[in-house]
Amino acid sequence: MTDITMIRAAQARLAGHARRTPLLASPFLDEIAGRRVLIKPECLQHTGSFKYRGARSAISALDADTRAHGVIAFSSGNHAQGIALAAHEFGVPSVIIMPSDAPRLKIDNTRALGAEVVLYDRAGEDRDAIGDRLSAERGLTLIRPFDEPQVIAGQGTTGLEIAEDATALGIETADVLVCCGGGGLTSGIALALEADAPGLRARPVEPEGFDDVARSLRNGRIERNTRSAGGLCDAIITPQPGALTFPIMHRLCGPGIVVSDDEALHAMARAFQRLKVVAEPGGAVALAAALFHADEIVGDTAICIVSGGNVDADIFTTALARFG
Amino acid sequence: MTDITMIRAAQARLAGHARRTPLLASPFLDEIAGRRVLIKPECLQHTGSFKYRGARSAISALDADTRAHGVIAFSSGNHAQGIALAAHEFGVPSVIIMPSDAPRLKIDNTRALGAEVVLYDRAGEDRDAIGDRLSAERGLTLIRPFDEPQVIAGQGTTGLEIAEDATALGIETADVLVCCGGGGLTSGIALALEADAPGLRARPVEPEGFDDVARSLRNGRIERNTRSAGGLCDAIITPQPGALTFPIMHRLCGPGIVVSDDEALHAMARAFQRLKVVAEPGGAVALAAALFHADEIVGDTAICIVSGGNVDADIFTTALARFG
Repeated sequence: MTDITMIRAAQARLAGHARRTPLLASPFLDEIAGRRVLIKPECLQHTGSFKYRGARSAISALDADTRAHGVIAFSSGNHAQGIALAAHEFGVPSVIIMPSDAPRLKIDNTRALGAEVVLYDRAGEDRDAIGDRLSAERGLTLIRPFDEPQVIAGQGTTGLEIAEDATALGIETADVLVCCGGGGLTSGIALALEADAPGLRARPVEPEGFDDVARSLRNGRIERNTRSAGGLCDAIITPQPGALTFPIMHRLCGPGIVVSDDEALHAMARAFQRLKVVAEPGGAVALAAALFHADEIVGDTAICIVSGGNVDADIFTTALARFG
Repeated sequence: MTDITMIRAAQARLAGHARRTPLLASPFLDEIAGRRVLIKPECLQHTGSFKYRGARSAISALDADTRAHGVIAFSSGNHAQGIALAAHEFGVPSVIIMPSDAPRLKIDNTRALGAEVVLYDRAGEDRDAIGDRLSAERGLTLIRPFDEPQVIAGQGTTGLEIAEDATALGIETADVLVCCGGGGLTSGIALALEADAPGLRARPVEPEGFDDVARSLRNGRIERNTRSAGGLCDAIITPQPGALTFPIMHRLCGPGIVVSDDEALHAMARAFQRLKVVAEPGGAVALAAALFHADEIVGDTAICIVSGGNVDADIFTTALARFG
């Protein structure tokens, strides 16, 4: 089970590899939000999302013999790219299993980062069976996207950096708004804050229609989304919180916040205009919460993660056209 | 005259105020460029450009009595915003003289940062006369946009950071590509590199049609542009290199590189896709040189400044539509 010792160990393994992202701010965003807003742009992380942290943490934690056989992941998105790059850096093979209808660009990018991409037919093939077969044949280690102790530890390094920077700024209390899918980033940050900045409280933020974490926290038990795909914020849509991540979030997090797809697009346009960073829709929900759900947030300061920036030009253009 | 001692002093005055921008990179950009490319995103600096550094350096260097009377600048762009914010931080007045046909958003932004904006009619009024009158009446100090020793010193802090980060990465020789208008940033960086990383060489990069610095360096004397406005890269278009900046550039810089407006737009799209940062056209010319003028660059590594990100949504959308 992930604890602060594992997060600090992950930080040591990531040193010199993961980017130390800064905290950004703009007086124009403070004015919209009605409080000070600090933004941690993990879109600037390698591969364009925080997922590289967890991927490198997990791969670096394997013993060398196990690692040498390679790793495998199921993902068509940010986790895939993080795993591909981290495996490439260690010079070990990675296999990413993706649906054959995944966007061409994501397939190409993942291959370009050094991974072997295995495509499967969503309708007719069982991806788990394919994964099991490949793992058995080649001795690959499965790296899950969030419900994996060393992945949570890697994402938690984001929280150590927030705690350090907030302390340096004299910030003792704040809501820390986290874009939340399965809860790997949120639970990792919550553990780091508990240890290093206990006045800071993690708050998961989700898109409307996919508020499984907010409902699970409210009801004290894991609840599922009725839909498992289809929203604009695809990067952070998962069926339900993880078996490992939920108990951590339940113990440490404040209530979830739910934002609309339009609010996410609006936040993308403000991040473009005021911060000069590119946010993907799912990566913009925490900033959307800070800007447009101020009455649900406590305190003079809100800290937001922009969790990723892997967005197609057409969706980004839509955000600018509607809210530029 | 600006020297390394002044740059180090400016760095001390800027500590805790200017953002320490990181070096970004992407294997996809390395592949296009055919060498390692490191990007320093000054678009993430306060007010969206490096200009804040020079503005705060100059205002902080004034004696307290002089500063208390306030400062004045002529600018409709990034220098205006840098001056407005830095003056506001010191609690002193700033007056920005802008043409009355400047974009509404730039006027509003500059006012929102705390400046008094005085508009003049380009056709019928003499802006220098207006500035002289206001300065005399109120005791304002003029802060020039580049030909000002403490402004050059402030921009030079960018070079100290590059030298420090390059040394930490073991980079001993590289061309450092700098988006160049009047030469404040280029000359400041050149002085910093001379002192702290003498194997790194500054190279000014300009847009086609406004290559006054490249021609001046080639011919060993200050030459003017035939046009003074009208290009896409408005942020870095000036009539000629400065009387203070040119001798520094002539002594220390490698040859200038000239890129097309299309190459600048293309570089903006690649910065969006691979770095997740927003570059304005003039802020993208150095990256354009690295990506599309590889044969004019020397060595295994190129370091590029993205000097600013203050671009309207419509121009950004054009870049994505054409090169996304």
